[in-house]
Amino acid sequence: MKEYALIVAGGKGTRIKSNTPKQFLELDGMPVLMHTLEAFYRYSKNIQIILVLPADDFATWEMLCTRHKFHKPLLLQRGGDSRFQSVKNGLDKIEGDGLVAIHDGVRPLIHEDIIGASFRLAAVHKSAVAAVRLKESIRMTDQDTTKAMDRSRFRLIQTPQTFQVDLIKKAYALKEDDTLTDDASVAERAGHAISLFEGSYENIKITTPEDLVVAEALLLSRKGRG
Amino acid sequence: MKEYALIVAGGKGTRIKSNTPKQFLELDGMPVLMHTLEAFYRYSKNIQIILVLPADDFATWEMLCTRHKFHKPLLLQRGGDSRFQSVKNGLDKIEGDGLVAIHDGVRPLIHEDIIGASFRLAAVHKSAVAAVRLKESIRMTDQDTTKAMDRSRFRLIQTPQTFQVDLIKKAYALKEDDTLTDDASVAERAGHAISLFEGSYENIKITTPEDLVVAEALLLSRKGRG
Repeated sequence: MKEYALIVAGGKGTRIKSNTPKQFLELDGMPVLMHTLEAFYRYSKNIQIILVLPADDFATWEMLCTRHKFHKPLLLQRGGDSRFQSVKNGLDKIEGDGLVAIHDGVRPLIHEDIIGASFRLAAVHKSAVAAVRLKESIRMTDQDTTKAMDRSRFRLIQTPQTFQVDLIKKAYALKEDDTLTDDASVAERAGHAISLFEGSYENIKITTPEDLVVAEALLLSRKGRG
Repeated sequence: MKEYALIVAGGKGTRIKSNTPKQFLELDGMPVLMHTLEAFYRYSKNIQIILVLPADDFATWEMLCTRHKFHKPLLLQRGGDSRFQSVKNGLDKIEGDGLVAIHDGVRPLIHEDIIGASFRLAAVHKSAVAAVRLKESIRMTDQDTTKAMDRSRFRLIQTPQTFQVDLIKKAYALKEDDTLTDDASVAERAGHAISLFEGSYENIKITTPEDLVVAEALLLSRKGRG
């Protein structure tokens, strides 16, 4: 089945103290986003990648590609006003059926084996969403009080979130709403059961300056092991 | 009010691939546990620290103290068969009232300001538990299905968990049960409302080899900033 990756890199970097959008920050000498894309190309040379970026960032991206001699075949698509709109725009680039792995551009440590697993599982279950168990206790908060919850019943959700193209396109055709924080919740709202698989704690999302420090350390440690 | 810190370091390191209990692994040239203790001494020279260790580890600890010239006044207490029993044993060392910050020995990056805040807040609210918001989406799992949850309603719980001594001693006098994964849940079961405060993402718990890599990077980055 034809495999697509939809990389969403729409963030403006407001949470990181930097004028550079976080997907363009350097990690071990290369922008975060290029690490992410390289992981998908390591997984497969035949994958069709759709990169969704804010239109304002196209020029920066092309400059970075020139500087880092990054010349890979990918479809560039302009982002929307929300993650929902950006993913929807990206899905518009896909013609025909297949499987699509939707992945955050700022998760550069994704391992090619996790990507591969998500495609295999989605081929069977129609969806495959990376998730990890909680290492810490969890409480639910209410107006004034909080209550201990059974942490074994919860999973933190990562990306890739991989789906049958047809299924996820139809799910994104429904109306946007604020409670839809990821692709799994969009698919769920359209009536589909979500299949989770064990992700990896290393697959962090770069949202704070500390995350960049952590990512660099994990990357160097991985090189040392490799 | 008299201030105590109860540092629980009972782990056998089964999750980390090492024969050394994780609290004794070296982080930037010093065992993890010493970093944790140093943070509490940085907060206050007058704090009374109770260190709870498995009795089997006493000799190793004394050897490490000699090697690292770590000669601080602290009360050593033997751990029990569970975290619950270990904390209970530690609380037995406290005579009279005051406030006690219960903290994981394997959270070496705790900042002295967070410790200070927890004591100030516990003085007012009787409890003060460090917690952080979720950076990722969360799902609840059932037998066969999973369901998206509103992540804004959840908090991941860290330590320190600081309490009025009298309150937490009475809570630990009740029967142990498997659902009590932290001190806040013990206090809650005894009928007390739990007061949370904003912890720090840097305050990680060392449970995997990757965590040690991450902790070292955060520590060096902090030194660079300092």
